[in-house]
Amino acid sequence: MRGLFITFEGVDGSGKSTQARLLHVHLSRITDVLYTREPGGTVIGERIRQVLLGDAAMTPHTEMLLFAASRAQFVADIVEPALDAGRLVLSERFVDSSLAYQGHARALGVDVVRAVNTVATQGLRPDLTLLLDIDPEVGLARARETDGKEGRRGFGDRLEQEGVAFQQRVREGFLSLAREEPHRVRVVDASRDVHDVHGDIVRIVDEFLRARGWRASSSS
Amino acid sequence: MRGLFITFEGVDGSGKSTQARLLHVHLSRITDVLYTREPGGTVIGERIRQVLLGDAAMTPHTEMLLFAASRAQFVADIVEPALDAGRLVLSERFVDSSLAYQGHARALGVDVVRAVNTVATQGLRPDLTLLLDIDPEVGLARARETDGKEGRRGFGDRLEQEGVAFQQRVREGFLSLAREEPHRVRVVDASRDVHDVHGDIVRIVDEFLRARGWRASSSS
Repeated sequence: MRGLFITFEGVDGSGKSTQARLLHVHLSRITDVLYTREPGGTVIGERIRQVLLGDAAMTPHTEMLLFAASRAQFVADIVEPALDAGRLVLSERFVDSSLAYQGHARALGVDVVRAVNTVATQGLRPDLTLLLDIDPEVGLARARETDGKEGRRGFGDRLEQEGVAFQQRVREGFLSLAREEPHRVRVVDASRDVHDVHGDIVRIVDEFLRARGWRASSSS
Repeated sequence: MRGLFITFEGVDGSGKSTQARLLHVHLSRITDVLYTREPGGTVIGERIRQVLLGDAAMTPHTEMLLFAASRAQFVADIVEPALDAGRLVLSERFVDSSLAYQGHARALGVDVVRAVNTVATQGLRPDLTLLLDIDPEVGLARARETDGKEGRRGFGDRLEQEGVAFQQRVREGFLSLAREEPHRVRVVDASRDVHDVHGDIVRIVDEFLRARGWRASSSS
């Protein structure tokens, strides 16, 4: 039986890492889970990440294509093998991030970004996406607060410096994706206490797994 | 008046650099020409080139997307500004290389590679393409011979190690592009003496410029 692919999305500071880790702990008790986040630790992905984090000027198209290149390796090396092995895969960020950041907030167009990413992922789509929705001002304040504590943050560092208006457009982009695909993309109010948010996520995921007939197994 | 965009394509060792430089000298006498080659010297392009030249394993999709990312910056920073300034632009390699190498020889599919590159170039297409056609065995022998003399070779280094069977598929890919677009892609027999090849190219380009009503100007 093929595994299932669950992604966490949201603006910077929405709590993706925290919530993905809490869910990982929860699910690890009942099944075999891989927790990962883009770029996923591939050598190529890390090298592309360094290019994205660098100070060299790049066009929005170049940026979007670099994320897609990294994602192609992430899918091939990390996600697909785990799904083929029947594992549950939890990932922070996936194609929806590019649709919201580059397609919507940078105005490249969602269709263009989707077309490129469909090539990069060879059509792989998440089975369930948890959209952690939060006011970007609150999220950015949180991101700054945890920067010192957590060390390296996610792939979005380059984009974190864009300011609140940009993050506002990203949030709108995510919410419009949720409106387009309400069944796959579940909006969670991430402004609340971390345990309340986790409680909601556990409820959504448990129900999703039950609906998919997921069988508990010994964890690895 | 907007400029014109002429590209050189062909397998490794087909003489693209030599012929592009000879044509540059010829055309510089009559008009304002920019000679460039991918990745074109942009900071981002050079960084992506280093990733492509590295030894890290990558999927064909990742490779194709990295070339496209570099090309997006090349178009935005180098080619479009020169065309907007009314210059004649000569480039070694462009989208046709990705179609032949990744689309055809690596079997990603020409349509997929074309779709991604149309995004990367925002639809920019060469006005004329000179396809230097040569038996890959002859080309590879030439490439090895000149490696020491010319120092750094083009963006294709990673692909030069693929062997003759791969280069044979690349050649077939280029020739099928020429069959699809015989008006734009002109096949030149590159197995001959360098001056004979140059003579053919000058004839094709002079005729092309005349047909486009190109006016000679003082060179820069």
